[in-house]
Amino acid sequence: MRDVAVIGVGLTKFGELWDRSFRQLIAEAGSKAILDAGIEGKDIDALYIGSMSSGRFVDQEHVGALVAEVSGFSHLHIPATRVEGACASGGLAVREGFLSIASGMNDIVIVGGIEKMNDVGGTAATETLATAADQEWEAFFGATFPGIYAMIATRHMHEYGTTREDLAHVAVKNHANGALNPYAQYQSPISLESVLRATMVAYPLGLMDCSPVSDGAASIVLCAADKAKKYTDKLVRIAASGQASDTLALHGRRDICTLDATVHASRMAYKQAKVTPKDIDFAEVHDCFTIAEICAIEDLGIVEKGQGGKAVQQGITTLNGSFPVNTSGGLKAKGHPVGATGVAQVVEATLQLRGDAGKRQVPDAKRGMAHNVGGSGATCVVHILEAM
Amino acid sequence: MRDVAVIGVGLTKFGELWDRSFRQLIAEAGSKAILDAGIEGKDIDALYIGSMSSGRFVDQEHVGALVAEVSGFSHLHIPATRVEGACASGGLAVREGFLSIASGMNDIVIVGGIEKMNDVGGTAATETLATAADQEWEAFFGATFPGIYAMIATRHMHEYGTTREDLAHVAVKNHANGALNPYAQYQSPISLESVLRATMVAYPLGLMDCSPVSDGAASIVLCAADKAKKYTDKLVRIAASGQASDTLALHGRRDICTLDATVHASRMAYKQAKVTPKDIDFAEVHDCFTIAEICAIEDLGIVEKGQGGKAVQQGITTLNGSFPVNTSGGLKAKGHPVGATGVAQVVEATLQLRGDAGKRQVPDAKRGMAHNVGGSGATCVVHILEAM
Repeated sequence: MRDVAVIGVGLTKFGELWDRSFRQLIAEAGSKAILDAGIEGKDIDALYIGSMSSGRFVDQEHVGALVAEVSGFSHLHIPATRVEGACASGGLAVREGFLSIASGMNDIVIVGGIEKMNDVGGTAATETLATAADQEWEAFFGATFPGIYAMIATRHMHEYGTTREDLAHVAVKNHANGALNPYAQYQSPISLESVLRATMVAYPLGLMDCSPVSDGAASIVLCAADKAKKYTDKLVRIAASGQASDTLALHGRRDICTLDATVHASRMAYKQAKVTPKDIDFAEVHDCFTIAEICAIEDLGIVEKGQGGKAVQQGITTLNGSFPVNTSGGLKAKGHPVGATGVAQVVEATLQLRGDAGKRQVPDAKRGMAHNVGGSGATCVVHILEAM
Repeated sequence: MRDVAVIGVGLTKFGELWDRSFRQLIAEAGSKAILDAGIEGKDIDALYIGSMSSGRFVDQEHVGALVAEVSGFSHLHIPATRVEGACASGGLAVREGFLSIASGMNDIVIVGGIEKMNDVGGTAATETLATAADQEWEAFFGATFPGIYAMIATRHMHEYGTTREDLAHVAVKNHANGALNPYAQYQSPISLESVLRATMVAYPLGLMDCSPVSDGAASIVLCAADKAKKYTDKLVRIAASGQASDTLALHGRRDICTLDATVHASRMAYKQAKVTPKDIDFAEVHDCFTIAEICAIEDLGIVEKGQGGKAVQQGITTLNGSFPVNTSGGLKAKGHPVGATGVAQVVEATLQLRGDAGKRQVPDAKRGMAHNVGGSGATCVVHILEAM
């Protein structure tokens, strides 16, 4: 397989973007990535786009071709492919773009991720997100994701003594990081008390334990590493791409507190990159709910199983801790336009490895990880990135 | 890039399958492909699935993981990815599976395609299909696909003198072929008169010029060619995979009678396989409407632009003609469960190249083509397959 590098990144601000359309958002993110890479549209061999449910959120399937069109590529007739794996759609798009270069088929590929979630009314966003769960065995009976992750959380509390305060510390940390990120949906620090006192959504998860419903887009430009020096001196290599699956419904799992897809995807990635978690300096992980970040750092092998809550409480994962997690603010504070998230994680990792992360820069970051989950863990994709 | 072979194929019957679920259909097609390949589930490194709008047709996104689960692969935790490009979703899934092996990441990959379209009521199937058109500039104003292809047809009649009889001959031929295919939705020959007298849908396209709303699934097993001899003596190689895009809406095109995505995808494929149309023995093409097959044989370079109608009328594309097209019955008679179609085309091409196509066998078939289109031509993917 050929080496692949990230040579450009672009983001829109995440948030409730009532005055901007699906088309505008992806065009903005893509244009920024192209400008950042210093390439021209005609240099691009293919396009991949991650979107979870454009068909339900904006009544538009076939968004691969649409994104190529609004990006001004129609006359180039490049291959344009949409990839979907629920909230892991963006990470999967990165992986397919990576494989298409690694194979030798393409030299330069643009990857996007997008979701426009706020344009639907009433409970439609929650119902559409629930199509990432098992429709016949979970969603049909009324289960939505706050309830599903609440089951994971209560079991984690029972098994390992994790507390509501442990969960709340994840939200406090991620809001502190989001306050340093000009693209984040929420750029204000919050207190532990405000998290604990927030409206309960599904015990033990209160409103401030949940990532928001967001609009936004992200984009990266990938290039065969041997051709990338022409475009940038700050090369970031994709050292590994791991992916795994599990049962769609929670009840089919070996252990509901462990996301086996995360375990398998990360082990595949560590093996490819020939590293262990100790060799990694920071990670963007999939904190759709606070409990999800605690499970993630355990299942990625950053801390031992059951020790995630204590690790967060002890400050290990803060910006100044020994292993910073979600320096971008994570899904919790940066926002979670589901199809964009996995691409946005790679954007943050790239900025950190280039030394371009501003006030939230991790000193001397050489190797980072992006961990993107679909549903309650039926899909996981893990990328390891390295400064070259 | 590594060479890739098809070592197993499986299909469900296509049709209005009221008594069978999405899960049952894909499990049947996948199991048949695995049995046909003579592999075990544990031999499979990854899964790709093409589905256009599972989110709207069966309220279920995240079908990569679901298909892995219902296929019995959950405990293997293999990467499972859904790919979408409207009615080209199946062909795109084949391409991503192919690239993942060509890259060296995987050795054996199972690819599926599925759509369950009849479970929604009223006009919901037509409305969901219209999400493959441009929602803001076509569907919102009431355009649906019969109307869009009718515009292509009337222009083709104006430009090239194509007649309603030319169109009708496509339907007659494809029903004649479908009558020889035990998996086809319609297995009865039809007369030219019955096509011309059928209820008008959108002039000049009558009911018998349109492919049906179908349920069904298809699956293939791909393997690195150097490891494929272990499994089968009837090796079929994927000699090329071409893909291209165009504007989502018809009005953005250079010429509405020419699908430039087909032109570009096929030229990319011919170049990769180092062949010309003359070197190809037969093709499965995307005949969602009769006019689409006429455009396809022109845009693929099988006949000159404008000569498609006459070529069909002259019998060139019949089973005994000089260039058989849609031996399976095509989308018109075999049925068109949209996400399954692109995979089912590769199934038919593989059966032909193995000599396993029964009563519809093309004598001495050595090289075939599968041509899969999304929407009115915003996405096209072309595969060339060769007997090894």
